[in-house]
Amino acid sequence: MTTQHNSRTGLEELSTEECWRLLGEHVVGRLAVSINHHPDIFPVNYRVKDGTILVQTAAGLKLAAATLGPSVAFEVDVINEEKHTGWSVVVHGPAEQVEQLEELLDLEDEGGVDTWAESEKTRYFCIRPTEVTGRRVPTN
Amino acid sequence: MTTQHNSRTGLEELSTEECWRLLGEHVVGRLAVSINHHPDIFPVNYRVKDGTILVQTAAGLKLAAATLGPSVAFEVDVINEEKHTGWSVVVHGPAEQVEQLEELLDLEDEGGVDTWAESEKTRYFCIRPTEVTGRRVPTN
Repeated sequence: MTTQHNSRTGLEELSTEECWRLLGEHVVGRLAVSINHHPDIFPVNYRVKDGTILVQTAAGLKLAAATLGPSVAFEVDVINEEKHTGWSVVVHGPAEQVEQLEELLDLEDEGGVDTWAESEKTRYFCIRPTEVTGRRVPTN
Repeated sequence: MTTQHNSRTGLEELSTEECWRLLGEHVVGRLAVSINHHPDIFPVNYRVKDGTILVQTAAGLKLAAATLGPSVAFEVDVINEEKHTGWSVVVHGPAEQVEQLEELLDLEDEGGVDTWAESEKTRYFCIRPTEVTGRRVPTN
């Protein structure tokens, strides 16, 4: 894998391929949205599908804030606070609600997104990445 | 500790005291900022100090985006993807750069913030919380 060291931040920059590999191995990320210049952040369940990030959520603020703004940011990381190691991948791009019946049926056939809390999570949106970047704290 | 169950989200809502206890036990969080309606998200090192979240960072985009906007969102979580358990605490509030020499000297005396990557992280800002909320996925 190709990594580059950023001398300003002290972090290794991950290749796009490595970022997608890491995204594909996890199921919980954090969604950042902007509501009237006020950012907000929520953990969400997701999966990678056809080069997009598919998120399942309830109708409500998260969905509205994600799909009404020009873009969202989405982050997945694994951080070990004791060992001072970790990596973080950030995806930027517009989020669109999945509304086509055919697409929704396909998603349900595939089992949707693995959600944890017992609520009615019946809406899907997908983030179409315009940028995918990742960084890792270098191990000494 | 007092927790309430939110029937819409299926999550337990944590008390403010519990949120602060959890914030005090960790050193890495995620900062969400908004840049021209485009949200962004970064992992950051932090510590709790006098009822604020103190973040140490390099001069640059993170610092500018955090302190120029009306507010930021800051999130700390511990999520176990295998067990489907976890909690998340989110802090909202304005961020201000620490510029007073006396305050800076105090921070340096106290050891600053525990940062991991080897870079010149010489700026501090603090988030003054206007809202602190937390949620936990209930264990069945």
